[in-house]
Amino acid sequence: MRDFLNETELNTLNHSCAHVMAQAVKHIWPQARFWVGPVVEEGFYYDMDLGDVTLNDADLEKIEKEMKKICKDGKKIVRHEISREEALEQFHDDPYKVDLITRMEEGVQISMYTQGDFTDLCRGPHVESTKMCRNFKLIKHSGAYWKGDKNNKVLQRVYGVCFPTDEELQEHLQLLEEAKQRDHRKLGKEMQMFMFSDIVGSGLPMWLPNGFTVRRLLSDYIMNKELDQGYIHVMTPSVVSTKLYKISGHLAHYKDDMFPIMERDDEEFCLRPMNCPEHMIMFRSTLHSYRDLPVRIAEIANDFRFEASGALTGIERSRAFTQNDSHIFCRPDQIAQEIKAVTNLILDVYKDFGFKEYQFRLSLRDPENTEKYFGNDELWEKSEAQLREVLKEMDVPFYEALGEAAFYGPKIDVQVRSAIGHDVTLSTIQLDYQLPERFELEYVDSDGQKKRPVVIHRAILGSLDRFVAFLLEETKGVFPAWLAPTQVHLIPVNIEAHDEYAKKVELDLRKAGFRVHDDNRNEKLGYRIREAQTKKIPFSLVLGDKEKENGTVTYRRYGQKDQITVSEQEFIDLLKEACSDRSL
Amino acid sequence: MRDFLNETELNTLNHSCAHVMAQAVKHIWPQARFWVGPVVEEGFYYDMDLGDVTLNDADLEKIEKEMKKICKDGKKIVRHEISREEALEQFHDDPYKVDLITRMEEGVQISMYTQGDFTDLCRGPHVESTKMCRNFKLIKHSGAYWKGDKNNKVLQRVYGVCFPTDEELQEHLQLLEEAKQRDHRKLGKEMQMFMFSDIVGSGLPMWLPNGFTVRRLLSDYIMNKELDQGYIHVMTPSVVSTKLYKISGHLAHYKDDMFPIMERDDEEFCLRPMNCPEHMIMFRSTLHSYRDLPVRIAEIANDFRFEASGALTGIERSRAFTQNDSHIFCRPDQIAQEIKAVTNLILDVYKDFGFKEYQFRLSLRDPENTEKYFGNDELWEKSEAQLREVLKEMDVPFYEALGEAAFYGPKIDVQVRSAIGHDVTLSTIQLDYQLPERFELEYVDSDGQKKRPVVIHRAILGSLDRFVAFLLEETKGVFPAWLAPTQVHLIPVNIEAHDEYAKKVELDLRKAGFRVHDDNRNEKLGYRIREAQTKKIPFSLVLGDKEKENGTVTYRRYGQKDQITVSEQEFIDLLKEACSDRSL
Repeated sequence: MRDFLNETELNTLNHSCAHVMAQAVKHIWPQARFWVGPVVEEGFYYDMDLGDVTLNDADLEKIEKEMKKICKDGKKIVRHEISREEALEQFHDDPYKVDLITRMEEGVQISMYTQGDFTDLCRGPHVESTKMCRNFKLIKHSGAYWKGDKNNKVLQRVYGVCFPTDEELQEHLQLLEEAKQRDHRKLGKEMQMFMFSDIVGSGLPMWLPNGFTVRRLLSDYIMNKELDQGYIHVMTPSVVSTKLYKISGHLAHYKDDMFPIMERDDEEFCLRPMNCPEHMIMFRSTLHSYRDLPVRIAEIANDFRFEASGALTGIERSRAFTQNDSHIFCRPDQIAQEIKAVTNLILDVYKDFGFKEYQFRLSLRDPENTEKYFGNDELWEKSEAQLREVLKEMDVPFYEALGEAAFYGPKIDVQVRSAIGHDVTLSTIQLDYQLPERFELEYVDSDGQKKRPVVIHRAILGSLDRFVAFLLEETKGVFPAWLAPTQVHLIPVNIEAHDEYAKKVELDLRKAGFRVHDDNRNEKLGYRIREAQTKKIPFSLVLGDKEKENGTVTYRRYGQKDQITVSEQEFIDLLKEACSDRSL
Repeated sequence: MRDFLNETELNTLNHSCAHVMAQAVKHIWPQARFWVGPVVEEGFYYDMDLGDVTLNDADLEKIEKEMKKICKDGKKIVRHEISREEALEQFHDDPYKVDLITRMEEGVQISMYTQGDFTDLCRGPHVESTKMCRNFKLIKHSGAYWKGDKNNKVLQRVYGVCFPTDEELQEHLQLLEEAKQRDHRKLGKEMQMFMFSDIVGSGLPMWLPNGFTVRRLLSDYIMNKELDQGYIHVMTPSVVSTKLYKISGHLAHYKDDMFPIMERDDEEFCLRPMNCPEHMIMFRSTLHSYRDLPVRIAEIANDFRFEASGALTGIERSRAFTQNDSHIFCRPDQIAQEIKAVTNLILDVYKDFGFKEYQFRLSLRDPENTEKYFGNDELWEKSEAQLREVLKEMDVPFYEALGEAAFYGPKIDVQVRSAIGHDVTLSTIQLDYQLPERFELEYVDSDGQKKRPVVIHRAILGSLDRFVAFLLEETKGVFPAWLAPTQVHLIPVNIEAHDEYAKKVELDLRKAGFRVHDDNRNEKLGYRIREAQTKKIPFSLVLGDKEKENGTVTYRRYGQKDQITVSEQEFIDLLKEACSDRSL
């Protein structure tokens, strides 16, 4: 994806194109008034008051047609400046402009841009003529509250993109189409992975059998990896007393992101947005010697955050999600070794999944805004330095980002580049001196003294939900054999003649630990073969006379054309082999 | 356990003994005033106002000593009657008695019982003399608000038991001691299965690594059984919009048992007390043909109920628990076959666990109180008859219980007799015509008409939490090999000489899929051997020179004395064999 915000030329071009669109709109709806038209991540948009008009898809075409005319006409785009007072006078009957102008500093000159019959306030810069804006496309339209306040009027917002060449435009549109095809919400629905319901509540995913199977496989996968690395797994409740979050500081720092507090019988409860505080309580419940550390408490944890309904995005951003979480309680002298071990676990998992394009980001405190964070400067500097040190020592390439730290400490975020070019943060490692302090955690050191441990928060797959969204978008729903909800689709050629054999094969494969579906519906062979393709099942097996007679199966791997006949045992071995490769 | 409430003789004896206790207390604390002294499930108790005195354990001994004197003295217990007015006059300076008397019907005669210097209001009957009360024991004491209202004064409550013979008393005390030893709260703590914390909130269990391991094994066990039986697993959110419970009727019928409603941004949410309604929504989200039924949706589901703090009992009765739940959506003609299949699944699981003493209870509606239930009489009678029919047909012994039905339908509850003689309801099968109606569920029948399916709610292990509590009490924490959090405890004789070999054995056993702990602490051999016993680990392996040299292990099974030396592979085979037996 192109970077509309930071590629200077592209930014200017899109900004100019927004003016072209506004001009076209004004031609069609002379009553139109304009609010703001910025360049954003997706291109440009303009918020417009069209009186009673609510735009529809056909309107977009109409606007595009008019824009084409304006571009062809190729008027020069001319800048001039007027004073704030002149501007206020010129636009006195346009409340949107008046609102903008009165918020500008007194005494400054205000720049205006004119192209033919259209003039708009604008800081600029712009391209030279409307002709340069000709390679554009309007993408979508929506309603948007003026100033984002739901008590205000709904304005019409139209999004578009503009490129120097038609080639670049076409390339971009193709990428957009690709992203649409890969949208996890679309794929998740087609593959019956999850569903939403207004009655159950927005942002609250319901995992269907296919989706649950993938989640179960992923949590087993990561839990077994963790067990091998000396983690211990626990389960803590999703609802807790607010006492816990008073100690942890979440009520003070995180309340806006939480579901509301529940009060009953003089007790206050809330749904947990994260499970760190519970793990602190668990650690604190027993005595620890320096020899027992590190203690690595891990949990596949259901958490709840009150995302604004506008921010909800399928299972990528929902109100109920499951973290692959852990807290490592260690001595200060163990920090480096533990961060290394976690980094190695991340690299190991990425290797399994075949992720190749990823970046480590060292997320630091915003030094201009330190009151947002817990703890003193010295601790922050120390822990930031420690993380930097380890990354350097391990020779892992990384970059640094100010203001991206958690409120309790700096972190290492690992961002994986997705198929459509987005960077998705999957894993994180966070150093925390604050929670141990707040919860007064202790261990007895070799000198008999009580000391404070350090906590490392870490997630490998991140949230299982976001990880599944990522998998869907990466694979377009073609899961590797080990993760596919159904691995083998059995198709008896003739139900009467061959389903008994199919049932035997089904049982054998199930016993060998595979997920099998016998499609013995009374439907045509071709229909059932196509269904296995539609459902993107890794292996489909056609079973007819020949197979029944010889105890063989004829398999076809998804995406390949060959149909190959092998013995049942050979197929089982082949399936095992296929499942041992976890890469996408 | 003896039935104090229903064994008439025992009831009378215990009631009389309560008077003996009151008399003894009056001798020691003449200011004592008495509230009520009923017979309850555990024996008898008396609530007493002793002014400023708060009883302690030593006081209980003092009271017992005085009671012994009274019994030895053997005064006759004599009944006489006075009028309500006479009683009010006689007790005018005792507010507790006045409270009791004024609530009696006007004009009735009030019975009084006197033994020596002690007289008390009492309906009776009583035994003939205090001598008969001599085989008693005071069990415990506590504070209790007068009339259970926390705004009232705290009275002193003392519990006791009394039996006709000393032999029966001793037997009972032994049972109590056994129950104490088997208390899952005690065992759960000793075995580090779970913990509670006031800061996290009462009734909200935190599962420690050992407990989580057992839960994980149990859910894998039951999910795999279910998969074999054609169930499909899903995961639905623990928090939902109240819209859902308005449709289901839970807000009207179940609100008192739920956590409070959360309101934000014009939306209302609540924690789910059960997951039936979500499964209804899931079923409703796609079209169903008569050929697709039954659909068996299953979930290992986290649910939340607001139990009163006084009712909380470890993980047996908590506010956050996990159900082994399922809803079977079927055609009316499939009810019998599905209930049979569920019954068979229950019997299969009980056979695995070696449960032998259990009863099926057909739980019916209370015919005197029909307004508590959804739906009309005809449906209730029909569905009650259907369940009865199936049980008879399967020749499963059962009894019927009025008033034990769910509010939406009759059910079959399966109660397992515990080691200390309690009946614990583990499994349940519930027939439901109501929720399909409320959620307007449909399938397309063979005649092309839309029809309403029936729902069967069922749980096999019940709640995982209660099941673990039951396991702890049954096994006293000695889990069968397949369920033990740690299966093998490795003990290298000398760390320096033998831990390398121990590490090799550990790795081999882990690779074979077992849970192993290498106790290579610098502690004495005997100490480490005892630790394996204390932790009730099924197998402990001592590894010394001989074992290292020959590639053998010397194992000892928990509870047995023999130490047996076998090759590593023989031990692995033996372990597999041991784990294939799931019985307790």
